[in-house]
Amino acid sequence: MKNLLLQLDTDTQPSTFDSVVAIDSGADVMFRHGGVTTDQVEGLVHGLIFTRAPSKLKHSAIYVGGSNVDAAEELLNAVKKTFFGPMRVSVMMDGNGANTTAAAAVICGGRHLDLKATQALVLGGTGPVGQRAARLLIRAGASVRLASRSLDKAQKACQQIAEDLQMEGPQPVAASDPTSVEAALQGVQLLIAAGAAGVTLVPQAIRQNAQDLKVAIDLNAVPPVGLEGVDSFEKAVEKDGQICYGAIGVGGTKMAIHRAAIERLFQQNDLVLNAEEIYELGTELEG
Amino acid sequence: MKNLLLQLDTDTQPSTFDSVVAIDSGADVMFRHGGVTTDQVEGLVHGLIFTRAPSKLKHSAIYVGGSNVDAAEELLNAVKKTFFGPMRVSVMMDGNGANTTAAAAVICGGRHLDLKATQALVLGGTGPVGQRAARLLIRAGASVRLASRSLDKAQKACQQIAEDLQMEGPQPVAASDPTSVEAALQGVQLLIAAGAAGVTLVPQAIRQNAQDLKVAIDLNAVPPVGLEGVDSFEKAVEKDGQICYGAIGVGGTKMAIHRAAIERLFQQNDLVLNAEEIYELGTELEG
Amino acid sequence: MKNLLLQLDTDTQPSTFDSVVAIDSGADVMFRHGGVTTDQVEGLVHGLIFTRAPSKLKHSAIYVGGSNVDAAEELLNAVKKTFFGPMRVSVMMDGNGANTTAAAAVICGGRHLDLKATQALVLGGTGPVGQRAARLLIRAGASVRLASRSLDKAQKACQQIAEDLQMEGPQPVAASDPTSVEAALQGVQLLIAAGAAGVTLVPQAIRQNAQDLKVAIDLNAVPPVGLEGVDSFEKAVEKDGQICYGAIGVGGTKMAIHRAAIERLFQQNDLVLNAEEIYELGTELEG
Repeated sequence: MKNLLLQLDTDTQPSTFDSVVAIDSGADVMFRHGGVTTDQVEGLVHGLIFTRAPSKLKHSAIYVGGSNVDAAEELLNAVKKTFFGPMRVSVMMDGNGANTTAAAAVICGGRHLDLKATQALVLGGTGPVGQRAARLLIRAGASVRLASRSLDKAQKACQQIAEDLQMEGPQPVAASDPTSVEAALQGVQLLIAAGAAGVTLVPQAIRQNAQDLKVAIDLNAVPPVGLEGVDSFEKAVEKDGQICYGAIGVGGTKMAIHRAAIERLFQQNDLVLNAEEIYELGTELEG
Repeated sequence: MKNLLLQLDTDTQPSTFDSVVAIDSGADVMFRHGGVTTDQVEGLVHGLIFTRAPSKLKHSAIYVGGSNVDAAEELLNAVKKTFFGPMRVSVMMDGNGANTTAAAAVICGGRHLDLKATQALVLGGTGPVGQRAARLLIRAGASVRLASRSLDKAQKACQQIAEDLQMEGPQPVAASDPTSVEAALQGVQLLIAAGAAGVTLVPQAIRQNAQDLKVAIDLNAVPPVGLEGVDSFEKAVEKDGQICYGAIGVGGTKMAIHRAAIERLFQQNDLVLNAEEIYELGTELEG
Repeated sequence: MKNLLLQLDTDTQPSTFDSVVAIDSGADVMFRHGGVTTDQVEGLVHGLIFTRAPSKLKHSAIYVGGSNVDAAEELLNAVKKTFFGPMRVSVMMDGNGANTTAAAAVICGGRHLDLKATQALVLGGTGPVGQRAARLLIRAGASVRLASRSLDKAQKACQQIAEDLQMEGPQPVAASDPTSVEAALQGVQLLIAAGAAGVTLVPQAIRQNAQDLKVAIDLNAVPPVGLEGVDSFEKAVEKDGQICYGAIGVGGTKMAIHRAAIERLFQQNDLVLNAEEIYELGTELEG
């Protein structure tokens, strides 16, 4: 029986990135849908769960994506509402790659640090990748500062994470210029830069002078990079006594997680792979 | 040579139901098109019939679907007009599942009754499934009452069937409340309820008291069901001296017909599988 | 590793013709996109080139099509701009079949004539097929007259070709009626009629009386054909001392070129198959 993957994408043209990874990870046939809205989800999912016997439903699965992560998250919620009892299929959400990217960043950090004893700083912490990285770090036991140019936005993101996790959330900080970034880096061992493409968040001198910093991870691949002096291809390169990752250096781990998640979808019919589950899966891959 | 199925769907997002069944029934590759309009049909069909040698055209086929059955029927007509001589491929139409559902319902009835000697009543007879069920029953030799809440609509549907078949059509009846339903059931051996989802057409007591009723088939799977007291999962369950089918109880037969029809498409290049042909195919499956 | 073909089509419904040929020529999986605009190209192409190792990128390729040849050409340009260094895949453009049709017509002519010593006339020379046929003939060393009903349009097309090739372009001629067509045919050995569907460009008597004409090729398959008296199915049929091809007679060569071009896409990852490259490939097939 062929492995079918229903791709629900919020963008007009469904992502080819997600489709290629799926085909290379065990999907035999793709049903690719673009411009998907929540009201269309029920019919599309019913078509999947009513056409194969429950014992065969692990050969059908759903991938939710799209460049708008919030819209993709809404699609995922609509998908989950459609399931009932054994009438369900496994589903993965990775809008804009936010889940696999955040998971990969935290996993890279965890290779060099005991996260439970780590003070982390997430720059660009209010974006979809930043929020997810902060959430994963909190759950992994780290102390987290979530930084944004706007303290107000940082506070809201931290509250949301605290509510979601029913745990103490990250500490909001404003980091709008070199001085405030320098202050935010005080006592920080793990830095994850999840800011917008093409924006330098940390000048080289400030990173070099960050006394406690052990691991610096930049997730912006579009020059200028987010951490000045960290090349996007660098992967666990030691410089200035710090272990540095560029966006493409993290990319191999991200891709491995993405592939493994797709493969996992076809092993049982009741998985929901969102940020946390994708991170868990990534830690398993670390061995 | 791969079996290609061109799926032409009237809905914006092409049906995943139809696609999964096709993949599981011998289609190797699907070309799935949503929001298809009649003016687009010629180009899409030409692309199919001008790319393979006539002797290989049985490996290319067309499936027409969509939730709007009338629109799907128009697409089918447009498809047929595009064919000429040996330059054609087999095509199946099953908009909203109306053809396979109507065929399955009549076949279920025929398992227990000699249709040629049967008085049937089709409730919701003006809808796409009801009209098709009535038409198939007439052709199978049954006497048919076609019921609608509106006598006027019932009359029009009956006239249309008579014109289509060039035979005496069903008898129109109004059935808008328990009293009129009770009257319509007088002398009826086969009841098919093809009404709207979530609407109870026949109260339990009226069905139980229908003296002549031998087989009761409900095609509404969404609670409340159309025939009160007939569970949607029931399949040929005897209750109150009547053999009862719920919508999902008919579903297995419907799915078997659908699968067989897709398989048939790839055996020759000149089939047109609409209601009658799909019903014929279904009777062959009964053995 | 599966051969993936990304189909970028300018039409709302992506061409089934192009998809069938691709599947029959080595594409294992198609990602079919309709209504593609230039601003969407980068994301779609990035998804292809960032998901497989550079050494495997020959298993991913792009086909650009659509009934609007100019729009398809713009998509091709957008695709090429997205590539950088080894991060690229092979791409073929054949909007409205213009490239394969023009190549096939010139190749058919070259079977019977030494193109370097040939005076050719292209009727309908300002359309996408006509322009390409004229360009290919010029490059093959022929002398070319490019005819249009409007001399002004013919002149512009000739100038464009001269600029594109940085060579002397075709000679523009007006051919709006039998008399002017007769004049344009003086001294012509190869006639290619690339006019609009259903328009007769050359009355039979004028073709028969063309003293120097050796090969007449009609690319209009929709009756009335472009060259009166040349049946669309004819392939190298001698009549009146001239070798004649109808549109379908050229079609076998066109299809062979199209198939070979798709196969070629999956042999390396740095091909750009536009008119010239497709013609070269076609001449290789001639052996």
